Amino acid sequence: VPSFDLALRYPASGTLCRIRVARGGLSGLGPWTKRTTGAHRVAVVSDHHVSALFGESAVRGLRRSGIDAALVTVPAGERTKSVLHLERLWRQFSEIGLVRSDAIVAMGGGVVGDLAGFAAATWLRGVPWVNVPTSVVAQVDSAIGGKTAIDVAGGKNLAGSFHQPAGVLIDPDALVTLPDREFRAGLAEVVKTGMAVDAGLFRWLERHAGHVLAREPDALLEIVRRAVRAKSRVVIGDEREREAGGRTALNFGHTVGHGLESVFGLRRLRHGEAVAIGMHVAAILSASVAGLPLAEQERLDALLERLGLPIAIPPGVRVAVLGAAIRRDKKRDRSGTRWVLTPRVGHASVPRLISGRRVRAALCEAGAWA
Amino acid sequence: VPSFDLALRYPASGTLCRIRVARGGLSGLGPWTKRTTGAHRVAVVSDHHVSALFGESAVRGLRRSGIDAALVTVPAGERTKSVLHLERLWRQFSEIGLVRSDAIVAMGGGVVGDLAGFAAATWLRGVPWVNVPTSVVAQVDSAIGGKTAIDVAGGKNLAGSFHQPAGVLIDPDALVTLPDREFRAGLAEVVKTGMAVDAGLFRWLERHAGHVLAREPDALLEIVRRAVRAKSRVVIGDEREREAGGRTALNFGHTVGHGLESVFGLRRLRHGEAVAIGMHVAAILSASVAGLPLAEQERLDALLERLGLPIAIPPGVRVAVLGAAIRRDKKRDRSGTRWVLTPRVGHASVPRLISGRRVRAALCEAGAWA
Repeated sequence: VPSFDLALRYPASGTLCRIRVARGGLSGLGPWTKRTTGAHRVAVVSDHHVSALFGESAVRGLRRSGIDAALVTVPAGERTKSVLHLERLWRQFSEIGLVRSDAIVAMGGGVVGDLAGFAAATWLRGVPWVNVPTSVVAQVDSAIGGKTAIDVAGGKNLAGSFHQPAGVLIDPDALVTLPDREFRAGLAEVVKTGMAVDAGLFRWLERHAGHVLAREPDALLEIVRRAVRAKSRVVIGDEREREAGGRTALNFGHTVGHGLESVFGLRRLRHGEAVAIGMHVAAILSASVAGLPLAEQERLDALLERLGLPIAIPPGVRVAVLGAAIRRDKKRDRSGTRWVLTPRVGHASVPRLISGRRVRAALCEAGAWA
Repeated sequence: VPSFDLALRYPASGTLCRIRVARGGLSGLGPWTKRTTGAHRVAVVSDHHVSALFGESAVRGLRRSGIDAALVTVPAGERTKSVLHLERLWRQFSEIGLVRSDAIVAMGGGVVGDLAGFAAATWLRGVPWVNVPTSVVAQVDSAIGGKTAIDVAGGKNLAGSFHQPAGVLIDPDALVTLPDREFRAGLAEVVKTGMAVDAGLFRWLERHAGHVLAREPDALLEIVRRAVRAKSRVVIGDEREREAGGRTALNFGHTVGHGLESVFGLRRLRHGEAVAIGMHVAAILSASVAGLPLAEQERLDALLERLGLPIAIPPGVRVAVLGAAIRRDKKRDRSGTRWVLTPRVGHASVPRLISGRRVRAALCEAGAWA
C-alpha cells in the first residue's frame, strides 16, 4: 500500500511527532496509537458525522491492539470549538478515568482536532494525543504543527495551546465521502501553502486539478503528501509562530479570511472560501506593494476558480465593516495588522504594515462596497 | 535592602524564569515586569482582598514604568479556580486588547496564580506572565515551578498547563497582613519541602519557629528564601513532573491532603491543614514500610504542632470514605495510588504502591473512623 512516513523532531520543544499518510491508514489506528503514545486507555473524540462513519471501527481497531477505548462524540460545526464543549470533554475524561499515561485520539476535521487537541493539552496539564484528520483542511493543513484552540467571545482561536500530537494518521481515502462544497473549500489551504512556500506544490495542483476534483485516490494521496511535507518544513523551524518566523507565511490570505468569517459569523462562507477570497485580496496588495507580477496574480485567481472557489467579496459587505473586523484579528501587534504578501508564487514576505488607504482600495477592487 | 535573585533556566523547555525575593519588593513591580516580559500592556489579575491592599499601587507602579496596566479582580477563594472565571479572564483580555507581546501579572495567593497563570498559558496560545505571590503557600511553594490549573468536576487541578512565569516577584512583607490561621496553614508547605528534600530547611524552621510565628520580617525573608531555593533545585530538573522524577517528592503529604479536601469540599480545612494531616499519615506509613525512625516521625509531629497545625484526621471521617477519595486522586496510574514516603527528614523515596490494608491501618491510627 502506498504510504509516506515522516518523523518531525521540533528543536524548540524537543517533541517528536510521527506522521503517516497512507491509503486505508485508518485500519491501522490501533498499532499506530500504541506505537506513538504507548497508551493503555484512550478517549476517541469525534463529531457525530465522522463518528457514524468511522467511530465503531476505530474503537474496534484500538481494542484489538489491547487499548481500552471509549468513544466521545461532539456536535459537528465550528460552534463546538467552545469552552462549553471543552469542559464537557474534561468531565468525560474524568469519568473515563484517563490518567497521565493515557491518551486522546481526535478523529475528525479541524474543529475536532482543535478542540480535542486543546483538551489533551490541558487535561492533567497535558496528555499525549493522536490526530486522525478526516477533512481536507485538517489533512493538508491544520493537523500539522500542533496548534490547538477554541473560540471565545471576541474571536476565533483566541484560547489554545501549542501541543504537538505524538502521532498524526492521515488516510486520504476518508476524503471520498465528503460533500463537494466542503471538499473544494479545503483545497484553498493547499493553494495557500503552494502560494506562500512551495511553488512545486502550486504547479502540481495546476496540472492535476482535474484528477484531484475527480477524487482519484492516487491524486488525493499525492496532494496530501505534498502539502504535509511542505507544511512540515515550515513549522519545524518555527514551532511557536514567532513574530517574524517562517510560520507566519502560512497566514497568507487569512487576514481578510478571518475578517470575512467574523462579519458573516461562520455561516455563509466556509473557512476555505473565506481564505480563497482573502488570497485574492492579498494578491492585489502584493501586486501593488510587493512586486507580484500580474501573470502570477492571474495564475492564483485562475487556479482558485478552476477549483470552484470564490475570489470576490460577496455583495453587500462594506469596506468599513470588513476593515474593522480585520483590525480586531489576533494576528496584530501594537502597531497594527501585519499582512503576509507574496512577491511570487512559492514565496511570502515577512508580515508588514499596509496603509489603510491601500487596504481599502484592495477591498474595493475585490468587490467590497464603499 | 536584603534581597535574593535567582535565574532558573529549565533545560527541558529552555524557558528562563527570574525569581526575586525582596523585602518591599512590591514597590519595584513596574521595572521588574518591564525587565522580565518587555510588555507594553498588562492585565493585573488579583482577588478582591489582595486588590484592596495592593491593587492601586501595583497599577501606579506599572504605569510609572510606561506599562499600560488594567486591573482585573476575581472573587477570593478556591471556587474561583473554575472554568467560569477562566472564561471571564479570556473575555477581559479580549476587551483590554492583549496581544502576544503583552503580559499578565498575577497578584495574590495560589488561587490567583493558578487561575491567571492558566489564562496566560492559553490566551493566544500563551503569553508571558509575572507571578506576584502574596500568601505563604504561594510564596514558599506554588509560585515556583510553572504549574497552573483550575478545578473541574471530579477534582482539583484536573485541567491546567505547565507555563513558566517570566518573572516571580516575592515580597515577604506582604505576609504581615495575613490572618493568623492562613499564615500558619501556609507553613505546612515549608515543613513538607524540608521533610521531603531539605533537612537544613526543616532544622532551620525547628530552631526559628518562634521568630517565624511572630512574623519578624527578617525571619520571613529567610524562610521564604530557603523554601524558594529548595523548591527551585527540585523543579529545575523535572519541569513536567515525570513519573519517577524528583518533583514527585513535593507531593509528600498531599495524597491524604487532597483526599481530605475532597471529603470536606474545601471548606472545613485549609489546604495547608489538610497537608499537615496528610504528612502525619505519610509518616506513619513511612515508619511502617520505609524505615523512618520513630524519633524523626516525632520531630515532624512536634514541628507541626508547634506551628499550630492539626495532625489528626478530624472526628467523623470514615476510613472507607477517605480511602475512596484518595483512590480518585489524579496522582495515580493504571496500577493505583502511588505514595511518597520518607526514610528520614530531608529525603523522599520514589512514589510506591502501598497495600490497602496498610493504608487503612494508617488512616485509623491518624484518627479516621472504622
